[in-house]
Amino acid sequence: MSKVPFKPGNLLYPLPAVMVSCGDEPDNFNIITIAWTGTICSDPPMCYISVRPERYSHEIISRTGEFVINITTESLAFATDWCGVKSGRDVNKFKTLSLTPEKGQIVKAPLIAESPLNIECRVKDVKRLGSHDMFISEVVAIDADEKFIDKSTGSFQLNHAQPLAYSHGKYYGLGEKIGGFGFSVKKKKH
Amino acid sequence: MSKVPFKPGNLLYPLPAVMVSCGDEPDNFNIITIAWTGTICSDPPMCYISVRPERYSHEIISRTGEFVINITTESLAFATDWCGVKSGRDVNKFKTLSLTPEKGQIVKAPLIAESPLNIECRVKDVKRLGSHDMFISEVVAIDADEKFIDKSTGSFQLNHAQPLAYSHGKYYGLGEKIGGFGFSVKKKKH
Repeated sequence: MSKVPFKPGNLLYPLPAVMVSCGDEPDNFNIITIAWTGTICSDPPMCYISVRPERYSHEIISRTGEFVINITTESLAFATDWCGVKSGRDVNKFKTLSLTPEKGQIVKAPLIAESPLNIECRVKDVKRLGSHDMFISEVVAIDADEKFIDKSTGSFQLNHAQPLAYSHGKYYGLGEKIGGFGFSVKKKKH
Repeated sequence: MSKVPFKPGNLLYPLPAVMVSCGDEPDNFNIITIAWTGTICSDPPMCYISVRPERYSHEIISRTGEFVINITTESLAFATDWCGVKSGRDVNKFKTLSLTPEKGQIVKAPLIAESPLNIECRVKDVKRLGSHDMFISEVVAIDADEKFIDKSTGSFQLNHAQPLAYSHGKYYGLGEKIGGFGFSVKKKKH
């Protein structure tokens, strides 16, 4: 447990690796892969994405004030990585990857049909932090693949969809389940 | 791929499950477990934690303007869960869990020695969003367990430390490595 000092940097992991879709017409639909994302408030449900101003999606999201966070899976890992490397200025990512844009409940930005869960977001505020602008957003609707809905309880089983994580430069599936929230006080260990 | 509408909610996963340590004197050292955390800017390196105002750590961090994000591991899963369920108003979490507070480089908040990586943070802004306040923070120093430093390159091997993820109510280790960032364009598939 001997510690070595390191320079300040980005070492908070594992993170989700999501495909964020944006645009308000099929001609400008785009996808950007983002790991700088997370939940910032439970009630109202809010989340953020941080995007470099030079990215093509930055100007689309700034103009429309909307986007969709598409949860990715192990089987979407290739598309997830590819959308993080390529620019929508050069290529139509939906067409090249044969991903299906689908209409959401509320926002004009398309859902990615192949994702098990789509989180429709509306931008409330933008914070300019340096290399990245943070889009502080409200979750306005959620679209869930019925395949992962437990028929007896009606609840969505996200972890059955094999969600993708990004940790320090690498993509991983989830491993062994260690316990549920609160497992430490259900045991008699304490 | 048939989608069912769900109410807006918090379904963005997997997330890190970190232990956040705070306080400026041994008497008030505390630990709170947080999944509403992430990186918000690469340069300068910045991250956030969102905390309910009623939590004991909220008043400590509001007063001191500092905290440490301690990356957790599979072997710290029990302590991670326990620190998320118990309150520092009732119990000294360091003592009860036999965790070791260690002096950081810059902040007065203690590092958790048993964590493989400690991210020292200083609060720059607080955004009141509803159930949670978001502490927008700058990373001011990092402390890395030398055990996970590659001796030939000097780089920190976070994924060798078996970092812990939290996904939709459950804790997981990482599973199979799928690829590194950019793997999709290194293949000849496209």
